[in-house]
Amino acid sequence: MKRLLTFLMFCVAWGALLAQNPEQSVRKAMLLQEKAWNEGNIEQFMDWYWKSDSLMFIGSKGVTYGWEKTLANYKKGYPDKATMGVLNFELIQVKILSENAVYVVGLWALNREKPVGGHFTLLWRKIEGKWVIVSDHTS
Amino acid sequence: MKRLLTFLMFCVAWGALLAQNPEQSVRKAMLLQEKAWNEGNIEQFMDWYWKSDSLMFIGSKGVTYGWEKTLANYKKGYPDKATMGVLNFELIQVKILSENAVYVVGLWALNREKPVGGHFTLLWRKIEGKWVIVSDHTS
Repeated sequence: MKRLLTFLMFCVAWGALLAQNPEQSVRKAMLLQEKAWNEGNIEQFMDWYWKSDSLMFIGSKGVTYGWEKTLANYKKGYPDKATMGVLNFELIQVKILSENAVYVVGLWALNREKPVGGHFTLLWRKIEGKWVIVSDHTS
Repeated sequence: MKRLLTFLMFCVAWGALLAQNPEQSVRKAMLLQEKAWNEGNIEQFMDWYWKSDSLMFIGSKGVTYGWEKTLANYKKGYPDKATMGVLNFELIQVKILSENAVYVVGLWALNREKPVGGHFTLLWRKIEGKWVIVSDHTS
């Protein structure tokens, strides 16, 4: 009986996960990104970026291609918890473009001794069953 | 016979137009945008932006909402041909997201006495049969 209950609960949880619409999935992912950043875990934060050489990050220094290079830039720019500060995202718009494409416009802010922030536009895609950022334009 | 030939040519041209894929449509629109800009015609340039209060322009001053306000900003920032300079787009990537959504990453440059330029990411959508920019992030 206990096993059956466990199995049913697993089915319900799995069903709920599958039923998540693209907007919910992306919003949840961005909450997890904030959490990871605020725990000082850049790798975990970057887990929501496409692990591909085709990932594009468009920032003040132009375009960075690829997951490894983007991670290296983050680590260089934010070497410790003090520079990382406390990240806060504010989503202005989440546009569902298709079952596997979502466009997000929002604000980012790092609360730290010298606060910084700005806008971002993100293109999220569902690739191999997982929602990931394939293009990030941050200004 | 001449009429029939004209009709057939019309059909072929119309077919070719309909057959244009999203990437071709957007690339062509951006060539027309350059042309309009370089003729000093900001209204014509802006004809490729969504004529809606929901249009979003994310620039150095934050988010501007709406076609009218975006046009006003362009006119204020570029009051004459000298400040408009010669616009050149260089498309880095054109991603087709669905039949009616295309994401474009590129470079823009204004060739003028004091040249300026940077990157843009655009979200193009096909709305009521016409491809228009619904979100422009320029940095």
